[in-house]
Amino acid sequence: MSLFLTVLGSSSATPTAFRYPSAYLLRSDRMKSLMLIDCGEGTQMQLRRNSVCMQKIEHIFISHLHGDHFFGLFGFIFSQNLLGRKAPLHIYAHKPLKELINNMLSVDGTQLQYEIVFHAIKDGNSTLLKTDRMIVKAFPLNHSIKTHGFVFTEQGPPYVLDKDFVNQYHPNKEWMERIKNGADYETEDGIVLPHAQITRKVDNLKSFAYCSDTAYSPDVVKKIKGVDLLYHEATFMHDLAAVATDKYHSTSQQAAEIAKAARVKKLLVGHFSARYKDINPLVNEAKEVFANTSPAIEGMVVKA
Amino acid sequence: MSLFLTVLGSSSATPTAFRYPSAYLLRSDRMKSLMLIDCGEGTQMQLRRNSVCMQKIEHIFISHLHGDHFFGLFGFIFSQNLLGRKAPLHIYAHKPLKELINNMLSVDGTQLQYEIVFHAIKDGNSTLLKTDRMIVKAFPLNHSIKTHGFVFTEQGPPYVLDKDFVNQYHPNKEWMERIKNGADYETEDGIVLPHAQITRKVDNLKSFAYCSDTAYSPDVVKKIKGVDLLYHEATFMHDLAAVATDKYHSTSQQAAEIAKAARVKKLLVGHFSARYKDINPLVNEAKEVFANTSPAIEGMVVKA
Repeated sequence: MSLFLTVLGSSSATPTAFRYPSAYLLRSDRMKSLMLIDCGEGTQMQLRRNSVCMQKIEHIFISHLHGDHFFGLFGFIFSQNLLGRKAPLHIYAHKPLKELINNMLSVDGTQLQYEIVFHAIKDGNSTLLKTDRMIVKAFPLNHSIKTHGFVFTEQGPPYVLDKDFVNQYHPNKEWMERIKNGADYETEDGIVLPHAQITRKVDNLKSFAYCSDTAYSPDVVKKIKGVDLLYHEATFMHDLAAVATDKYHSTSQQAAEIAKAARVKKLLVGHFSARYKDINPLVNEAKEVFANTSPAIEGMVVKA
Repeated sequence: MSLFLTVLGSSSATPTAFRYPSAYLLRSDRMKSLMLIDCGEGTQMQLRRNSVCMQKIEHIFISHLHGDHFFGLFGFIFSQNLLGRKAPLHIYAHKPLKELINNMLSVDGTQLQYEIVFHAIKDGNSTLLKTDRMIVKAFPLNHSIKTHGFVFTEQGPPYVLDKDFVNQYHPNKEWMERIKNGADYETEDGIVLPHAQITRKVDNLKSFAYCSDTAYSPDVVKKIKGVDLLYHEATFMHDLAAVATDKYHSTSQQAAEIAKAARVKKLLVGHFSARYKDINPLVNEAKEVFANTSPAIEGMVVKA
């Protein structure tokens, strides 16, 4: 199984000409629908540029209510309505956003043709979403306003079916579920095909953690331990560590220290201050501490 | 004198990958500050791409409260605060926007470091701004919610000073104002330089009218009579005239008919439906009726 993260916005609060405010798209082999994490201004245009079918986005997770993390949500909601969306849209965010959405809808009397299901993120740790394919947990970060990080972990039956078997025997849905969970298969002629012969064990369910925005916070290490991919904000270079602390942000070095302490497999840094025209020094600073680091660049897809 | 209009967003309600929601920047030789007309999502990034000094934007005019005309305002307001703006920002819009802005500011407790001066657009015709350099008038359009068009007309002293005279005699500010308004100049030695010799008459004050969004509405013709540049929405081709009427929008042909009836000098069409990948047919349709027509294309600057 695999998780794919598309970078839609790598900028911190003030965007540049080509770096957008925070937004990331997450796709899992285990799910038909897509997930959006933060939704800064311009997200819908970025989704179009990356040829994403927006109707497939079922869940949107907003880390906190600074505008650069949610000002694109209103355009997304209204455009989906104009484009005929019928499927519910689940939004996970801090409570005040619900009223902002309602205010925005009421100003021109828009009646949405689809349902917004709003899930208020609770204080502290919580499970936001739990299906047989995905678990999403929230945990507190250390920012100037209430902010949460997220961990996405693939779930699912412990086995997948062998393709040759499926092509030859065409088992129905009920059979497929039983086999994925451990059963042997019995043909109409009474022949029993042993489970081990017709399945492959799934041993590569993936996980992704999202930490933005936050001051350096070793408390998060235990929450993101061993994830396959960690996104951690890296607003400043470490020479501005005092500024970072003051503004409740992290330096690139600090992001890498968190990645190292949590023994994650890969680190993606982003939320770069507009002052950095060239982001290579930020990436190199992180690599000194944690070698497997990549920068978030609009349009890139990172596989976990 | 000249007006320069920069196209920041030429799309109708749902943006495409490269066509942004409505936003236009207006610059006049007569004013030091800049004016923004509508402010769809992504405007601040478009301003950066076009190297516009955002601090110079003093007045923002919002035609109506459909999201594609104002969802970029919040990001603009917050970014200006982060970038240290001190100068007041004048926003001319329909009344409910004021509360939306206040709600957005209160959600994360932001205290702006500059003043927003909100001017509610009245029903019917009104004068929004009147200085010795610019007059901006609003007039009603025919759309599904309350919507106004705008006419911007350069003002100013009837004369400009001859450059050679200024370089040779360095008149002070008070003298310059007197001469611009008709006085002769008297040197310290008592020599009188006749007004006609040291000035040039300004006979080219320009005007620009903005009509978006609106159904075909001959009533506006008298409001925009003879302007140097008219922007008129052209959401659909004329084969969809019934759809246009139903949605309170115009066809390209109808935009051209308004331009022709108003005897404007130049027509700019925009607010193109996302269904048109190629906008040339829309432009050609308008040109059949009004030859001096250009399409709005992101980044282009049109001189009036």
